[in-house]
Amino acid sequence: MRKIFNAELTQLGSDLAEMSRLVEVAISNAGTALMTGDLRMAEAVIVADEAIDSLERELDTRCVHLLAQQAPVATDLRVIVTALRMASTLERMGDLARHVAQISRRSYPRLAVPEPLSGTFSEMNAAAVRVAQRTTTLLETHDLDLATSIESDDDLLDHLHEDTFTALLGGTWTGSSQETVDTTLLSRYYERFGDHGVSIARRMVYLVTGEFLEDGSPVH
Amino acid sequence: MRKIFNAELTQLGSDLAEMSRLVEVAISNAGTALMTGDLRMAEAVIVADEAIDSLERELDTRCVHLLAQQAPVATDLRVIVTALRMASTLERMGDLARHVAQISRRSYPRLAVPEPLSGTFSEMNAAAVRVAQRTTTLLETHDLDLATSIESDDDLLDHLHEDTFTALLGGTWTGSSQETVDTTLLSRYYERFGDHGVSIARRMVYLVTGEFLEDGSPVH
Repeated sequence: MRKIFNAELTQLGSDLAEMSRLVEVAISNAGTALMTGDLRMAEAVIVADEAIDSLERELDTRCVHLLAQQAPVATDLRVIVTALRMASTLERMGDLARHVAQISRRSYPRLAVPEPLSGTFSEMNAAAVRVAQRTTTLLETHDLDLATSIESDDDLLDHLHEDTFTALLGGTWTGSSQETVDTTLLSRYYERFGDHGVSIARRMVYLVTGEFLEDGSPVH
Repeated sequence: MRKIFNAELTQLGSDLAEMSRLVEVAISNAGTALMTGDLRMAEAVIVADEAIDSLERELDTRCVHLLAQQAPVATDLRVIVTALRMASTLERMGDLARHVAQISRRSYPRLAVPEPLSGTFSEMNAAAVRVAQRTTTLLETHDLDLATSIESDDDLLDHLHEDTFTALLGGTWTGSSQETVDTTLLSRYYERFGDHGVSIARRMVYLVTGEFLEDGSPVH
Protein backbone atom coordinates (compact mmCIF):
# COMPACT_ATOMS: atom_id res chain seq x y z
CA MET A 1 0.00 0.00 0.00
CA ARG A 2 2.74 2.36 1.10
CA LYS A 3 4.77 1.29 -1.92
CA ILE A 4 1.95 2.24 -4.29
CA PHE A 5 1.45 5.56 -2.51
CA ASN A 6 5.17 6.33 -2.82
CA ALA A 7 5.00 5.55 -6.52
CA GLU A 8 2.04 7.90 -6.82
CA LEU A 9 3.91 10.71 -5.06
CA THR A 10 6.90 10.18 -7.36
CA GLN A 11 4.57 10.27 -10.34
CA LEU A 12 3.15 13.58 -9.08
CA GLY A 13 6.68 15.02 -9.08
CA SER A 14 7.33 13.74 -12.60
CA ASP A 15 4.09 15.20 -13.86
CA LEU A 16 4.89 18.60 -12.36
CA ALA A 17 8.29 18.49 -14.08
CA GLU A 18 6.56 17.52 -17.32
CA MET A 19 4.15 20.44 -16.95
CA SER A 20 7.12 22.71 -16.26
CA ARG A 21 8.84 21.48 -19.45
CA LEU A 22 5.76 22.45 -21.46
CA VAL A 23 5.75 25.89 -19.79
CA GLU A 24 9.46 26.24 -20.58
CA VAL A 25 8.80 25.51 -24.27
CA ALA A 26 5.85 27.94 -24.25
CA ILE A 27 7.92 30.76 -22.75
CA SER A 28 10.85 30.08 -25.06
CA ASN A 29 8.65 29.94 -28.18
CA ALA A 30 6.60 32.97 -27.13
CA GLY A 31 9.86 34.90 -26.73
CA THR A 32 11.11 33.82 -30.15
CA ALA A 33 7.77 34.74 -31.73
CA LEU A 34 7.91 38.11 -29.99
CA MET A 35 11.46 38.98 -31.00
CA THR A 36 11.30 37.67 -34.58
CA GLY A 37 7.63 38.24 -35.46
CA ASP A 38 7.11 34.55 -36.23
CA LEU A 39 3.34 34.28 -36.58
CA ARG A 40 3.20 30.47 -36.77
CA MET A 41 5.22 30.11 -33.62
CA ALA A 42 2.93 32.58 -31.82
CA GLU A 43 -0.08 30.55 -32.91
CA ALA A 44 1.56 27.31 -31.80
CA VAL A 45 2.08 28.76 -28.30
CA ILE A 46 -1.56 29.80 -28.11
CA VAL A 47 -2.77 26.32 -29.12
CA ALA A 48 -0.27 24.51 -26.87
CA ASP A 49 -1.57 26.29 -23.77
CA GLU A 50 -4.56 23.94 -23.80
CA ALA A 51 -2.26 21.01 -23.04
CA ILE A 52 -0.85 22.85 -20.03
CA ASP A 53 -4.34 23.66 -18.77
CA SER A 54 -5.45 20.08 -19.18
CA LEU A 55 -2.35 18.79 -17.39
CA GLU A 56 -3.18 21.08 -14.48
CA ARG A 57 -6.70 19.67 -14.26
CA GLU A 58 -5.34 16.13 -14.33
CA LEU A 59 -2.81 16.88 -11.62
CA ASP A 60 -5.47 18.57 -9.52
CA THR A 61 -7.83 15.66 -9.77
CA ARG A 62 -5.04 13.27 -8.83
CA CYS A 63 -3.99 15.36 -5.82
CA VAL A 64 -7.54 15.52 -4.48
CA HIS A 65 -7.89 11.79 -5.09
CA LEU A 66 -4.68 11.08 -3.16
CA LEU A 67 -5.86 13.27 -0.29
CA ALA A 68 -9.11 11.32 -0.15
CA GLN A 69 -7.63 7.84 -0.59
CA GLN A 70 -4.48 8.08 1.48
CA ALA A 71 -5.37 10.60 4.19
CA PRO A 72 -1.73 11.67 4.17
CA VAL A 73 -0.08 13.48 7.06
CA ALA A 74 3.21 15.30 7.64
CA THR A 75 5.57 15.36 4.64
CA ASP A 76 3.23 13.41 2.35
CA LEU A 77 0.46 15.91 2.95
CA ARG A 78 2.86 18.78 2.36
CA VAL A 79 4.01 17.23 -0.92
CA ILE A 80 0.47 16.93 -2.22
CA VAL A 81 -0.73 20.37 -1.16
CA THR A 82 2.45 21.87 -2.63
CA ALA A 83 1.87 20.00 -5.89
CA LEU A 84 -1.64 21.48 -6.09
CA ARG A 85 -0.22 24.97 -5.72
CA MET A 86 2.72 24.51 -8.05
CA ALA A 87 0.39 23.18 -10.75
CA SER A 88 -1.73 26.30 -10.41
CA THR A 89 1.36 28.54 -10.65
CA LEU A 90 2.68 26.69 -13.70
CA GLU A 91 -0.72 27.06 -15.33
CA ARG A 92 -0.51 30.84 -14.79
CA MET A 93 2.97 30.90 -16.36
CA GLY A 94 1.49 29.13 -19.37
CA ASP A 95 -1.26 31.76 -19.56
CA LEU A 96 1.33 34.54 -19.52
CA ALA A 97 3.27 32.88 -22.37
CA ARG A 98 -0.03 32.73 -24.26
CA HIS A 99 -0.63 36.45 -23.57
CA VAL A 100 2.84 37.28 -24.96
CA ALA A 101 2.09 35.19 -28.06
CA GLN A 102 -1.30 36.89 -28.48
CA ILE A 103 0.34 40.31 -28.51
CA SER A 104 2.84 39.07 -31.14
CA ARG A 105 0.02 37.71 -33.24
CA ARG A 106 -2.02 40.91 -33.00
CA SER A 107 1.02 42.98 -33.99
CA TYR A 108 1.94 40.83 -36.98
CA PRO A 109 3.57 41.70 -39.38
CA ARG A 110 4.88 44.53 -37.20
CA LEU A 111 7.17 43.53 -34.31
CA ALA A 112 5.38 44.24 -31.02
CA VAL A 113 8.57 45.40 -29.31
CA PRO A 114 9.79 48.75 -30.65
CA GLU A 115 13.40 48.76 -31.79
CA PRO A 116 14.83 50.92 -28.97
CA LEU A 117 13.58 48.33 -26.45
CA SER A 118 14.55 45.17 -28.28
CA GLY A 119 17.73 44.79 -26.21
CA THR A 120 15.81 45.05 -22.94
CA PHE A 121 13.20 42.54 -24.07
CA SER A 122 15.86 40.12 -25.33
CA GLU A 123 17.30 40.18 -21.83
CA MET A 124 13.86 39.76 -20.26
CA ASN A 125 13.15 36.85 -22.53
CA ALA A 126 16.48 35.19 -21.74
CA ALA A 127 15.88 35.63 -18.00
CA ALA A 128 12.33 34.25 -18.22
CA VAL A 129 13.54 31.22 -20.19
CA ARG A 130 16.25 30.60 -17.57
CA VAL A 131 13.63 30.85 -14.80
CA ALA A 132 11.50 28.26 -16.58
CA GLN A 133 14.44 25.92 -17.28
CA ARG A 134 15.65 26.09 -13.71
CA THR A 135 12.14 25.54 -12.41
CA THR A 136 11.98 22.33 -14.43
CA THR A 137 15.39 21.19 -13.18
CA LEU A 138 14.51 22.16 -9.61
CA LEU A 139 11.37 20.03 -9.83
CA GLU A 140 13.40 17.12 -11.24
CA THR A 141 16.44 17.27 -8.96
CA HIS A 142 15.40 19.24 -5.83
CA ASP A 143 18.78 21.00 -6.14
CA LEU A 144 18.14 24.08 -3.99
CA ASP A 145 20.98 26.08 -5.56
CA LEU A 146 18.60 26.54 -8.44
CA ALA A 147 16.16 28.33 -6.13
CA THR A 148 18.82 30.96 -5.51
CA SER A 149 19.45 31.52 -9.19
CA ILE A 150 15.72 31.77 -9.87
CA GLU A 151 15.59 34.52 -7.23
CA SER A 152 18.47 36.31 -9.01
CA ASP A 153 16.72 36.17 -12.35
CA ASP A 154 13.56 37.47 -10.71
CA ASP A 155 15.56 40.46 -9.43
CA LEU A 156 16.94 40.96 -12.92
CA LEU A 157 13.43 40.85 -14.39
CA ASP A 158 12.28 43.47 -11.86
CA HIS A 159 15.16 45.72 -12.91
CA LEU A 160 14.47 45.25 -16.61
CA HIS A 161 10.78 45.98 -15.94
CA GLU A 162 11.86 49.27 -14.31
CA ASP A 163 14.18 49.97 -17.26
CA THR A 164 11.27 49.57 -19.64
CA PHE A 165 9.23 52.13 -17.73
CA THR A 166 12.19 54.49 -17.56
CA ALA A 167 12.48 54.25 -21.34
CA LEU A 168 8.74 54.72 -21.88
CA LEU A 169 8.55 57.69 -19.55
CA GLY A 170 11.86 59.35 -20.45
CA GLY A 171 11.61 62.38 -22.68
CA THR A 172 13.09 60.59 -25.66
CA TRP A 173 10.32 58.01 -26.15
CA THR A 174 8.64 58.53 -29.52
CA GLY A 175 6.66 55.28 -29.78
CA SER A 176 2.99 55.21 -30.77
CA SER A 177 0.23 54.59 -28.20
CA GLN A 178 -0.04 51.04 -29.52
CA GLU A 179 3.66 50.50 -28.86
CA THR A 180 3.38 52.02 -25.40
CA VAL A 181 0.39 49.82 -24.51
CA ASP A 182 2.00 46.62 -25.87
CA THR A 183 5.32 47.31 -24.21
CA THR A 184 3.66 48.04 -20.87
CA LEU A 185 1.70 44.78 -20.94
CA LEU A 186 4.65 42.70 -22.18
CA SER A 187 6.93 44.09 -19.52
CA ARG A 188 4.35 43.29 -16.85
CA TYR A 189 3.98 39.73 -18.16
CA TYR A 190 7.75 39.16 -18.10
CA GLU A 191 7.99 40.55 -14.60
CA ARG A 192 5.28 38.09 -13.51
CA PHE A 193 7.22 35.09 -14.92
CA GLY A 194 9.87 35.88 -12.32
CA ASP A 195 7.36 36.13 -9.48
CA HIS A 196 5.82 32.78 -10.34
CA GLY A 197 9.23 31.12 -10.65
CA VAL A 198 10.14 32.44 -7.20
CA SER A 199 6.85 31.18 -5.79
CA ILE A 200 7.66 27.64 -6.99
CA ALA A 201 11.28 27.90 -5.84
CA ARG A 202 10.25 28.96 -2.32
CA ARG A 203 7.69 26.21 -2.01
CA MET A 204 10.37 23.73 -3.03
CA VAL A 205 12.79 25.11 -0.44
CA TYR A 206 10.09 24.76 2.17
CA LEU A 207 9.26 21.24 1.04
CA VAL A 208 12.88 20.10 1.20
CA THR A 209 14.07 21.97 4.29
CA GLY A 210 10.86 22.80 6.15
CA GLU A 211 12.30 26.29 6.48
CA PHE A 212 11.15 29.70 5.41
CA LEU A 213 13.54 31.82 3.38
CA GLU A 214 15.75 34.31 5.19
CA ASP A 215 13.58 37.26 4.27
CA GLY A 216 10.71 35.65 6.14
CA SER A 217 8.67 35.26 2.99
CA PRO A 218 5.53 33.27 3.43
CA VAL A 219 6.37 29.94 1.89
CA HIS A 220 3.35 27.72 1.89
CA MET B 1 -15.46 14.78 17.10
CA ARG B 2 -17.66 15.27 14.03
CA LYS B 3 -19.33 18.18 15.78
CA ILE B 4 -16.01 19.91 16.31
CA PHE B 5 -14.99 19.25 12.73
CA ASN B 6 -18.27 20.73 11.47
CA ALA B 7 -17.66 23.80 13.59
CA GLU B 8 -14.19 24.09 12.07
CA LEU B 9 -15.56 23.86 8.54
CA THR B 10 -18.13 26.55 9.35
CA GLN B 11 -15.37 28.70 10.78
CA LEU B 12 -13.39 28.25 7.56
CA GLY B 13 -16.38 29.62 5.63
CA SER B 14 -16.70 32.60 7.99
CA ASP B 15 -13.02 33.38 7.68
CA LEU B 16 -13.18 33.32 3.90
CA ALA B 17 -16.14 35.71 4.05
CA GLU B 18 -14.17 37.92 6.44
CA MET B 19 -11.21 37.91 4.08
CA SER B 20 -13.56 38.78 1.22
CA ARG B 21 -14.94 41.72 3.23
CA LEU B 22 -11.41 43.07 3.64
CA VAL B 23 -10.83 42.67 -0.10
CA GLU B 24 -14.12 44.44 -0.78
CA VAL B 25 -13.03 47.40 1.38
CA ALA B 26 -9.61 47.42 -0.32
CA ILE B 27 -11.12 47.49 -3.82
CA SER B 28 -13.66 50.13 -2.86
CA ASN B 29 -11.06 52.36 -1.17
CA ALA B 30 -8.53 51.85 -3.96
CA GLY B 31 -11.21 52.95 -6.44
CA THR B 32 -12.07 56.04 -4.41
CA ALA B 33 -8.39 56.93 -4.07
CA LEU B 34 -7.96 56.46 -7.80
CA MET B 35 -10.94 58.56 -8.83
CA THR B 36 -10.48 61.36 -6.29
CA GLY B 37 -6.69 61.40 -5.83
CA ASP B 38 -7.01 60.78 -2.09
CA LEU B 39 -3.42 60.05 -1.05
CA ARG B 40 -4.22 58.95 2.50
CA MET B 41 -6.79 56.48 1.30
CA ALA B 42 -4.30 55.06 -1.21
CA GLU B 43 -1.77 54.62 1.57
CA ALA B 44 -4.36 53.00 3.81
CA VAL B 45 -5.11 50.40 1.11
CA ILE B 46 -1.41 49.63 0.73
CA VAL B 47 -0.97 49.12 4.48
CA ALA B 48 -4.21 47.13 4.86
CA ASP B 49 -3.07 44.58 2.30
CA GLU B 50 -0.82 43.05 4.97
CA ALA B 51 -3.88 42.00 6.96
CA ILE B 52 -5.28 40.22 3.91
CA ASP B 53 -1.98 38.43 3.30
CA SER B 54 -1.79 37.36 6.91
CA LEU B 55 -5.38 36.11 6.88
CA GLU B 56 -4.49 33.99 3.85
CA ARG B 57 -1.55 32.44 5.67
CA GLU B 58 -3.75 31.68 8.69
CA LEU B 59 -6.44 30.11 6.55
CA ASP B 60 -3.85 28.06 4.69
CA THR B 61 -2.31 26.74 7.84
CA ARG B 62 -5.73 25.83 9.19
CA CYS B 63 -6.72 24.03 5.98
CA VAL B 64 -3.55 21.95 5.96
CA HIS B 65 -4.05 21.22 9.65
CA LEU B 66 -7.62 20.05 9.01
CA LEU B 67 -6.44 17.84 6.15
CA ALA B 68 -3.88 16.25 8.46
CA GLN B 69 -6.09 15.90 11.53
CA GLN B 70 -9.39 14.91 9.98
CA ALA B 71 -8.37 13.04 6.84
CA PRO B 72 -11.56 14.31 5.24
CA VAL B 73 -13.18 12.68 2.22
CA ALA B 74 -15.93 13.59 -0.25
CA THR B 75 -17.62 16.93 0.41
CA ASP B 76 -15.51 17.80 3.44
CA LEU B 77 -12.34 17.35 1.43
CA ARG B 78 -13.79 19.44 -1.39
CA VAL B 79 -14.71 22.21 1.05
CA ILE B 80 -11.18 22.38 2.43
CA VAL B 81 -9.35 22.23 -0.90
CA THR B 82 -11.73 24.87 -2.27
CA ALA B 83 -11.08 27.10 0.74
CA LEU B 84 -7.34 26.86 0.10
CA ARG B 85 -7.86 28.01 -3.47
CA MET B 86 -10.36 30.75 -2.69
CA ALA B 87 -8.01 32.18 -0.07
CA SER B 88 -5.25 32.33 -2.67
CA THR B 89 -7.57 34.06 -5.16
CA LEU B 90 -8.76 36.59 -2.57
CA GLU B 91 -5.15 37.33 -1.69
CA ARG B 92 -4.48 38.11 -5.37
CA MET B 93 -7.50 40.45 -5.46
CA GLY B 94 -6.02 42.25 -2.45
CA ASP B 95 -2.69 42.57 -4.29
CA LEU B 96 -4.45 44.08 -7.29
CA ALA B 97 -6.21 46.64 -5.06
CA ARG B 98 -2.79 47.47 -3.63
CA HIS B 99 -1.39 47.90 -7.16
CA VAL B 100 -4.23 50.31 -8.02
CA ALA B 101 -3.50 52.27 -4.83
CA GLN B 102 0.22 52.33 -5.63
CA ILE B 103 -0.45 53.91 -9.02
CA SER B 104 -2.70 56.53 -7.36
CA ARG B 105 0.01 57.27 -4.83
CA ARG B 106 2.73 57.57 -7.48
CA SER B 107 0.54 59.93 -9.52
CA TYR B 108 -0.38 62.18 -6.62
CA PRO B 109 -1.28 65.07 -6.79
CA ARG B 110 -2.15 64.34 -10.43
CA LEU B 111 -5.09 61.96 -11.00
CA ALA B 112 -3.81 58.73 -12.55
CA VAL B 113 -6.85 58.36 -14.82
CA PRO B 114 -6.90 60.97 -17.58
CA GLU B 115 -10.13 62.94 -17.79
CA PRO B 116 -11.43 61.42 -21.08
CA LEU B 117 -11.35 57.98 -19.45
CA SER B 118 -12.76 58.88 -16.06
CA GLY B 119 -16.25 57.68 -17.03
CA THR B 120 -14.93 54.29 -18.15
CA PHE B 121 -12.89 53.85 -14.99
CA SER B 122 -15.82 54.90 -12.80
CA GLU B 123 -17.79 52.09 -14.40
CA MET B 124 -14.90 49.64 -13.99
CA ASN B 125 -14.56 50.58 -10.37
CA ALA B 126 -18.30 50.18 -9.74
CA ALA B 127 -18.27 46.77 -11.45
CA ALA B 128 -15.21 45.61 -9.47
CA VAL B 129 -16.80 46.73 -6.19
CA ARG B 130 -19.99 44.84 -7.09
CA VAL B 131 -17.93 41.73 -7.88
CA ALA B 132 -16.25 41.98 -4.48
CA GLN B 133 -19.52 42.61 -2.62
CA ARG B 134 -21.24 39.72 -4.32
CA THR B 135 -18.29 37.46 -3.68
CA THR B 136 -18.61 38.23 0.03
CA THR B 137 -22.36 37.59 0.00
CA LEU B 138 -21.90 34.43 -2.06
CA LEU B 139 -19.42 33.14 0.52
CA GLU B 140 -21.85 34.00 3.32
CA THR B 141 -25.09 32.75 1.80
CA HIS B 142 -24.15 30.25 -0.96
CA ASP B 143 -26.85 31.97 -3.06
CA LEU B 144 -25.83 30.85 -6.55
CA ASP B 145 -27.76 33.64 -8.29
CA LEU B 146 -24.87 35.81 -7.20
CA ALA B 147 -22.49 33.66 -9.25
CA THR B 148 -24.45 34.63 -12.36
CA SER B 149 -24.27 38.33 -11.61
CA ILE B 150 -20.53 38.06 -10.92
CA GLU B 151 -20.15 36.53 -14.38
CA SER B 152 -22.14 39.46 -15.87
CA ASP B 153 -19.92 42.01 -14.18
CA ASP B 154 -16.86 40.13 -15.41
CA ASP B 155 -18.23 40.44 -18.96
CA LEU B 156 -18.81 44.13 -18.36
CA LEU B 157 -15.23 44.53 -17.09
CA ASP B 158 -13.92 42.79 -20.21
CA HIS B 159 -15.89 45.20 -22.40
CA LEU B 160 -14.71 48.24 -20.46
CA HIS B 161 -11.13 46.93 -20.72
CA GLU B 162 -11.61 46.78 -24.50
CA ASP B 163 -13.12 50.29 -24.46
CA THR B 164 -10.04 51.59 -22.69
CA PHE B 165 -7.77 50.16 -25.37
CA THR B 166 -10.02 51.51 -28.11
CA ALA B 167 -9.70 54.97 -26.53
CA LEU B 168 -5.93 54.66 -26.09
CA LEU B 169 -5.39 53.44 -29.65
CA GLY B 170 -7.94 55.61 -31.40
CA GLY B 171 -6.55 58.56 -33.29
CA THR B 172 -7.89 61.11 -30.81
CA TRP B 173 -5.83 60.01 -27.79
CA THR B 174 -3.51 62.82 -26.70
CA GLY B 175 -2.41 61.50 -23.30
CA SER B 176 1.23 61.43 -22.23
CA SER B 177 3.24 58.19 -22.12
CA GLN B 178 2.82 58.18 -18.35
CA GLU B 179 -0.95 58.35 -18.76
CA THR B 180 -0.91 55.61 -21.39
CA VAL B 181 1.22 53.34 -19.18
CA ASP B 182 -0.88 53.95 -16.05
CA THR B 183 -4.15 53.50 -17.89
CA THR B 184 -2.98 50.27 -19.50
CA LEU B 185 -1.94 48.78 -16.16
CA LEU B 186 -5.05 49.98 -14.32
CA SER B 187 -7.34 48.60 -16.99
CA ARG B 188 -5.55 45.25 -16.81
CA TYR B 189 -5.88 45.19 -12.99
CA TYR B 190 -9.62 45.91 -13.16
CA GLU B 191 -10.09 43.24 -15.79
CA ARG B 192 -8.34 40.76 -13.47
CA PHE B 193 -10.71 41.58 -10.56
CA GLY B 194 -13.48 40.14 -12.72
CA ASP B 195 -11.53 36.98 -13.57
CA HIS B 196 -10.78 36.30 -9.92
CA GLY B 197 -14.40 36.91 -8.89
CA VAL B 198 -15.52 34.43 -11.54
CA SER B 199 -12.98 31.90 -10.34
CA ILE B 200 -14.43 32.05 -6.82
CA ALA B 201 -18.01 32.01 -8.12
CA ARG B 202 -17.37 28.89 -10.23
CA ARG B 203 -15.69 27.08 -7.38
CA MET B 204 -18.70 27.88 -5.21
CA VAL B 205 -21.11 26.59 -7.86
CA TYR B 206 -19.09 23.39 -8.03
CA LEU B 207 -19.01 23.08 -4.27
CA VAL B 208 -22.77 23.49 -3.94
CA THR B 209 -23.95 21.58 -7.00
CA GLY B 210 -21.01 19.33 -7.89
CA GLU B 211 -21.51 20.53 -11.46
CA PHE B 212 -19.38 22.34 -13.95
CA LEU B 213 -20.77 25.48 -15.51
CA GLU B 214 -22.53 25.23 -18.86
CA ASP B 215 -19.55 26.48 -20.81
CA GLY B 216 -17.58 23.50 -19.56
CA SER B 217 -15.16 25.68 -17.65
CA PRO B 218 -12.80 23.81 -15.46
CA VAL B 219 -14.16 24.36 -11.99
CA HIS B 220 -11.90 22.82 -9.44
